[in-house]
Amino acid sequence: VSELGVTWVDVPAGSQFPMQNLPYGVFTRDGSEPRIGTRIGDRVLDLTAAERTGLLDAGGTLQAAVLNDFMALGRPQWTALRQRLTALLTDGHHRADVEPLLTPADAVSMRLPVAVADYADFYSSRNHAENIGRILRPEADPVRPNWTWLPVGYHGRAGTVVVSGTPIVRPCGQRRAGPDAAPTYGPCLRLDIEAEVGFLLGVPSRLGERVSTAEFADRVFGVVLVNDWSARDIQSWESQPLGPFLAKSFATSISPWVVPLDALAAARVDGPAQDPEVLPYLRRHQPWGLDLAMEVAINGSVVSRPRFAGMYWTPDQQLAHLTVNGASTRTGDLYASGTVSGPEKEQRGCLIELTWDGSEPVTLADGSTRTFLEDGDTVTITATAPGPDGVPIGFGEVTGKVEPASG
Amino acid sequence: VSELGVTWVDVPAGSQFPMQNLPYGVFTRDGSEPRIGTRIGDRVLDLTAAERTGLLDAGGTLQAAVLNDFMALGRPQWTALRQRLTALLTDGHHRADVEPLLTPADAVSMRLPVAVADYADFYSSRNHAENIGRILRPEADPVRPNWTWLPVGYHGRAGTVVVSGTPIVRPCGQRRAGPDAAPTYGPCLRLDIEAEVGFLLGVPSRLGERVSTAEFADRVFGVVLVNDWSARDIQSWESQPLGPFLAKSFATSISPWVVPLDALAAARVDGPAQDPEVLPYLRRHQPWGLDLAMEVAINGSVVSRPRFAGMYWTPDQQLAHLTVNGASTRTGDLYASGTVSGPEKEQRGCLIELTWDGSEPVTLADGSTRTFLEDGDTVTITATAPGPDGVPIGFGEVTGKVEPASG
Repeated sequence: VSELGVTWVDVPAGSQFPMQNLPYGVFTRDGSEPRIGTRIGDRVLDLTAAERTGLLDAGGTLQAAVLNDFMALGRPQWTALRQRLTALLTDGHHRADVEPLLTPADAVSMRLPVAVADYADFYSSRNHAENIGRILRPEADPVRPNWTWLPVGYHGRAGTVVVSGTPIVRPCGQRRAGPDAAPTYGPCLRLDIEAEVGFLLGVPSRLGERVSTAEFADRVFGVVLVNDWSARDIQSWESQPLGPFLAKSFATSISPWVVPLDALAAARVDGPAQDPEVLPYLRRHQPWGLDLAMEVAINGSVVSRPRFAGMYWTPDQQLAHLTVNGASTRTGDLYASGTVSGPEKEQRGCLIELTWDGSEPVTLADGSTRTFLEDGDTVTITATAPGPDGVPIGFGEVTGKVEPASG
Repeated sequence: VSELGVTWVDVPAGSQFPMQNLPYGVFTRDGSEPRIGTRIGDRVLDLTAAERTGLLDAGGTLQAAVLNDFMALGRPQWTALRQRLTALLTDGHHRADVEPLLTPADAVSMRLPVAVADYADFYSSRNHAENIGRILRPEADPVRPNWTWLPVGYHGRAGTVVVSGTPIVRPCGQRRAGPDAAPTYGPCLRLDIEAEVGFLLGVPSRLGERVSTAEFADRVFGVVLVNDWSARDIQSWESQPLGPFLAKSFATSISPWVVPLDALAAARVDGPAQDPEVLPYLRRHQPWGLDLAMEVAINGSVVSRPRFAGMYWTPDQQLAHLTVNGASTRTGDLYASGTVSGPEKEQRGCLIELTWDGSEPVTLADGSTRTFLEDGDTVTITATAPGPDGVPIGFGEVTGKVEPASG
């Protein structure tokens, strides 16, 4: 049995979920208790049942409503389960046992895959930082002095990380009509997205322990897509001097399928050269740039195609920075890349950049235009990457529909 | 049986923990499993055992290593258990059953009382905000335009909230020798404290739900003291534009005994008048200022005596603001007041204010001086408040000793 083997499952050509992907998620069917599953083609394999029936063994960690217990086991066990899944899905001798545990993907509801511990968000696209700087502070250097020295980031609200598909109610809050106006209370008028990539920590670290860039693959379990919904008008009023707060905390959506690092071996690329030379604790030891081709669509119209490979700060550097002060990490910690924006206009990962602060609306397929999001809009972020054996893999999607503000 | 009754427990005169306090905490003794307890005088009453033996009934929520399950029950159950504890400790008929469950407080180790869900920190002392503004931005208005309109805040790292007594290892990170210098990596050179008061949420709220100021007492279970340790040199370099991150995330200490709101009825005072008039969602419905007299000591020398009563934004307003965008809350959410500083120099709640950015050192009892903290320093924050029946109550302490940076 090898990863090059062919699965006996009928996987549609071009599926985002070939045997080379095997992401992990949590699903329910017909009101069942949540179960852990993997995705193969258009099917979901019930791993909770597979462990219960003895087809595989992850120490009982698959008898849970979230991936955390399994994520805490560490890379040898992650790799072992992936190898076992590959065997089960390629060796025809297992078919009779495994096939009854497959469910059509369109018959299940996906849940938040992880109990999120702490959520941190970075700001690691140079193009994004430059664009935001030019828009908000046209009189100053677009990128602040600290930006090239450290991956700037902040903590977000872990309790409002939601799974793809969760409706996004337009937030209310304080915003101003202009720089000299008094604030008023009401629905956000500049609701935006941020297309990001998120990293889920499996193996925790103790208080006082620093996690080096070399430990990235031993700590990080897998990768999801993130939409860091952002209320730009609330943000611009509230953020000085302590950063974004309510402008982000109303919802952060993640894709339901956690793509394991092992599935991304062929997507790894060197991060961009960094000047000035980074301080020693931020030096890269292995290439952890990832060649993800992302798409952002509003109501089905693609408005942007960001490339993750160009991110200035790579996720190994972000993890080393997050812990350099001795901060502990927990299983289920999520950290996101920040908006993924490339050098081209059509590669910008949020509307404030795409529309240049609302001055250059984008046009959708139905002829309508957008500066920021309208009620009823559905935003969907997808990504694909080179996969093992030359077979591309996908991340599924993170999607959300904007609902009107509640009264 | 009434709260005016006299307890049969021998409580030393002037104890911070008279029968009128009855805070909740989690302790271990002789390596035992964690148990929930209350404090009376110099004793800890084992509530886990008391529930197991049928002396009281909190639905099994006291059979846990943290207070969260009990905190989730809601105010009627909180009040009922407090009344039952009062009965057990005042009615001599219960003495024979209860006395065996008392343990000397100095024989137990206190644990983190709560599994902290999300941690948010505000910035609600006007004197603190003005002082920081004058120190860091002497050319500008000390208080930014948004400050009088909303309680400015940010999210911190929940996973590094630690219980009083946890050693505080000096964090390392990036800092600069001056505004034009390149950053270097090394131990924080300006390690500071922030004396704060924290609020622990019991009853959660759903995504999309706003919690009004009038709901404060139905949601908030109790109050702790907080030391928001701060690395000022790391903070000043990293914080633009997204706020403090590693400068705060290495440790946030809280006191082990959670003082229930019911114990603070006599401490309630009106918050200060607010000008401009606040927006409707921030209007106060009841007085939730709290007349806490705090003390900050370094190595036993009191360096500050902040008063919590003067805080511009009160905790009911902070909770309403935190949720006005529809952000959900969870049992175990902690939100802190921000540094408590009063108008007088000796009422400032952090060293950067007390020493005016290091230019006016404070002198300790041993004749030594401090600008910021040195290795080996122990910082202890205490507080007392008017209690029921005219009997003052205390919060115990939140303390931590600074250990040298690890290599």
